[in-house]
Amino acid sequence: MTKYWAVTPTSALLADGAPIAELDTSGTPGFTGDKKAGTQLLAERSPVLSDLQEKLYANGRSGDRRSVLLVLQGMDTAGKGGIVRHVIGSVDPQGVDHAAFGVPSREERRHHYLWRIHKALPRAGQLGVFDRSHYEDVLVVRVHNMVPPTEWERRYDEINAFEHELVDEGTTLVKIAMFISLDEQKKRLAERLERPDKYWKFKPADIDERAFWPAYQEAYQAVLDRTSTDYAPWYVLPADHKWFARLAVTELLIAAFLRLKLDWPPALFDIAEQKRRLAQA
Amino acid sequence: MTKYWAVTPTSALLADGAPIAELDTSGTPGFTGDKKAGTQLLAERSPVLSDLQEKLYANGRSGDRRSVLLVLQGMDTAGKGGIVRHVIGSVDPQGVDHAAFGVPSREERRHHYLWRIHKALPRAGQLGVFDRSHYEDVLVVRVHNMVPPTEWERRYDEINAFEHELVDEGTTLVKIAMFISLDEQKKRLAERLERPDKYWKFKPADIDERAFWPAYQEAYQAVLDRTSTDYAPWYVLPADHKWFARLAVTELLIAAFLRLKLDWPPALFDIAEQKRRLAQA
Repeated sequence: MTKYWAVTPTSALLADGAPIAELDTSGTPGFTGDKKAGTQLLAERSPVLSDLQEKLYANGRSGDRRSVLLVLQGMDTAGKGGIVRHVIGSVDPQGVDHAAFGVPSREERRHHYLWRIHKALPRAGQLGVFDRSHYEDVLVVRVHNMVPPTEWERRYDEINAFEHELVDEGTTLVKIAMFISLDEQKKRLAERLERPDKYWKFKPADIDERAFWPAYQEAYQAVLDRTSTDYAPWYVLPADHKWFARLAVTELLIAAFLRLKLDWPPALFDIAEQKRRLAQA
Repeated sequence: MTKYWAVTPTSALLADGAPIAELDTSGTPGFTGDKKAGTQLLAERSPVLSDLQEKLYANGRSGDRRSVLLVLQGMDTAGKGGIVRHVIGSVDPQGVDHAAFGVPSREERRHHYLWRIHKALPRAGQLGVFDRSHYEDVLVVRVHNMVPPTEWERRYDEINAFEHELVDEGTTLVKIAMFISLDEQKKRLAERLERPDKYWKFKPADIDERAFWPAYQEAYQAVLDRTSTDYAPWYVLPADHKWFARLAVTELLIAAFLRLKLDWPPALFDIAEQKRRLAQA
């Protein structure tokens, strides 16, 4: 890993208060290799992630209450789906609790905004994946004035308190905000309009949203400024290069798993005795 | 596919009323190749399955109500988890609704046995995966007399009616019963006692269950005899060879997806108009 990373991805991508308006979305912070090197490294690192995930799962089955929760945020076409497919796709589906948060349903709208989030939290031993999350309630909701400012205003503290509880309960949060340029988004939307196998990913409303780009930048800035905590920090991911985004998320997850210092759980039975029993069964 | 399959897996593996006591669990019905050929073919066929699943997902996002539900049954160590990891692991996690049914929770026990099944059914456009299922309620429940015979006796018809409803609603059921020999199970349990990375998969109760093997065979026979219907047939899978089991499940899923005659959904918008709008946005 040290071969290509000048510094750890954890330090290269950590939100540090720098304005995202100045972010080079085509950059590869901390990584010194090119696309070929990055793709090759991803192929090497995916099995490492998969092994760590299996260890978490094994411990979960043996009574360990801990879990990992990947929170993915980003504008349309930022590549959240690609991360799920290509990064999360490399681990055992049994150990993944995946949830995508779209426009709230009628039932969800009748509850507190964290209601649907609570229901989708990863079980002990699981790798949870949120494709969008409770942060939508201070992003799209703020940008489109869906609730009065006094209401979204208090959500930042509420979210911090909520995440503090999660961490206290044993969940490691890996929050990643993916950023692409306005031009890169135009390119990706154009591709969806060119390829019949991509039409289904396109919604005319995606174009309308482009007019709100500056408002979204502002809302994202507030998220990073107000909800990047020491117990649940944000990582800022330049995502114009899909290969880099996938590699970086893989590394951030590996780093999070390594902090759990996972080993295979010990046998909860007398091995010699069970061997004797099995021989006779 | 015709290269190695003397007949289609669908016909080679379809439950045909033959007694499972006479099944060669080390066989590879319909497949003429060896392990190397099977492993290579699996590598070729996984992307085919993945593409078909993406098409189902795309259609689901565009209003198609259909889904596919893989039901996996089998004794401990039969390899259900390996199927999830190696077969389902090759498709996009976003499109998979996975559920494993263990011993019912207290809450589940206070409901009808189909309650937890209903809650876990795949959403439109999803590939559902049941690792164990409602069939546990006529397998372990019958073997261990957990309810009176009059009660499990009526469940076969109930299950058929339930599955008929699912099919009517647009769900394609792929029900696969995996069979290994008693010796193969001993080998696999022994391995779990040898390898520290496998201890967590072992429960002493797994050995106790071996005494009930004949009763389970009888219960499985009743399942095949009474719940293999034209709308939701059972496939009988010899599973001593893991490579064969994985390949066969992949082929059965591909066949099920092909029957849906999926194509990419058409654009639900005027393409030229959206291109013009995007150019200006």
